[in-house]
Amino acid sequence: MVVGYKTYLELIQGLLTDQEVVATGMRGEVSRCQTAIDRALAGDQVAIVSSGDAGIYGMAGLVLEIARARGLRLGGLEAAAADLRLEVVPGVSALNAGAALLGAPLMHDFVVLSLSDLLTPWELIARRVELAAQGDFVLAIYNPKSAKRTWQLPAVQETLLKYRSPDTPVGIVRRAARAGQEAVVTTLGQMLEHPVDMQTVLFIGNSQTLAAGGYMVTPRGYGGKYELE
Amino acid sequence: MVVGYKTYLELIQGLLTDQEVVATGMRGEVSRCQTAIDRALAGDQVAIVSSGDAGIYGMAGLVLEIARARGLRLGGLEAAAADLRLEVVPGVSALNAGAALLGAPLMHDFVVLSLSDLLTPWELIARRVELAAQGDFVLAIYNPKSAKRTWQLPAVQETLLKYRSPDTPVGIVRRAARAGQEAVVTTLGQMLEHPVDMQTVLFIGNSQTLAAGGYMVTPRGYGGKYELE
Repeated sequence: MVVGYKTYLELIQGLLTDQEVVATGMRGEVSRCQTAIDRALAGDQVAIVSSGDAGIYGMAGLVLEIARARGLRLGGLEAAAADLRLEVVPGVSALNAGAALLGAPLMHDFVVLSLSDLLTPWELIARRVELAAQGDFVLAIYNPKSAKRTWQLPAVQETLLKYRSPDTPVGIVRRAARAGQEAVVTTLGQMLEHPVDMQTVLFIGNSQTLAAGGYMVTPRGYGGKYELE
Repeated sequence: MVVGYKTYLELIQGLLTDQEVVATGMRGEVSRCQTAIDRALAGDQVAIVSSGDAGIYGMAGLVLEIARARGLRLGGLEAAAADLRLEVVPGVSALNAGAALLGAPLMHDFVVLSLSDLLTPWELIARRVELAAQGDFVLAIYNPKSAKRTWQLPAVQETLLKYRSPDTPVGIVRRAARAGQEAVVTTLGQMLEHPVDMQTVLFIGNSQTLAAGGYMVTPRGYGGKYELE
């Protein structure tokens, strides 16, 4: 059985043959995972489909949370006695795919952060942005804006401008590695002039990040040690 | 032409046919990229092979840095006039592959950090560890220890123990997705008891991270909103 959010199942249409398919809508995550676990306990082989990397803001965590809440034994790395055998298959997250489109923004230490306050209080998100800025981390920002949630990204920009130049390169990638993908390199000062939605990831450079021939790159420091020209 | 560190070229032996192959040793990164760029400028199609994701502590950044230092036009996202056409192919980094082996440690905001002080001053690395701890970020730590560099990981542990319980789950993954891969879930208090080297990535949980049936999971917060049992 294959279980997933319907948009993601459509993306893998070509891979599906005669499997039973259970498609659910947005916000159906919990019931989707419960169904998958129930069926696996009944002896079926079940795949839960997530977009990008299931382990990064995807479904892998919820499956483990539910299994734990239900007291199921998973065997784990020691492959001990188990009610359920689990395999998490890694993937290319929007942080990997988006960065590749932009050049190489994530070549040095970075923070990955979601601005969605659906499951996380805004105070914690805001604090993390401030600390990331203080640490001169590159930032990869997921879920920057939704139809109802529009003021967070300007707040992030304001915080970052306390620590970084408005000329800091910023990359904006929408639908990375999907049909209709879009990518642009702009600056911290001008980043709000570009359209952004829930399918967008923002890459905000650190103090070392450079614009490079239409791309962006965060140097690792070779320039200080070697002659690059 | 295919250019790369010899260990990585060995990993893709089965994919190579009649291409010219240039293998270089460790620390040969700069000359490797210079060679690749020179050959591309001469009209050859050149692939530079990196392990994991070329954009995360890989070779993509150095290629862009060198191209920039040499004043080469890359065309960039606007596909303008270019001396060199570049495509960065994203991959599955050790943060993706290692997390999948451990369960789902990266389900909430996280910091990716290298402890190598070859190109980055230790003071900056130490400050980033402290800020990551203050922000209750999960940490994925690359290059935790080398033959010569052994005191950094104990220093990181000491910093984190100021903010997090010694029972905090920690995952240690060596050679993720390669022959001889190893993964173990331990705790912040006991993490130094396990062997660690340059091929190891550590995943240090935040205050919410749980051990779950032999795996580790960082909840996204569904438990506070929905009934998971």
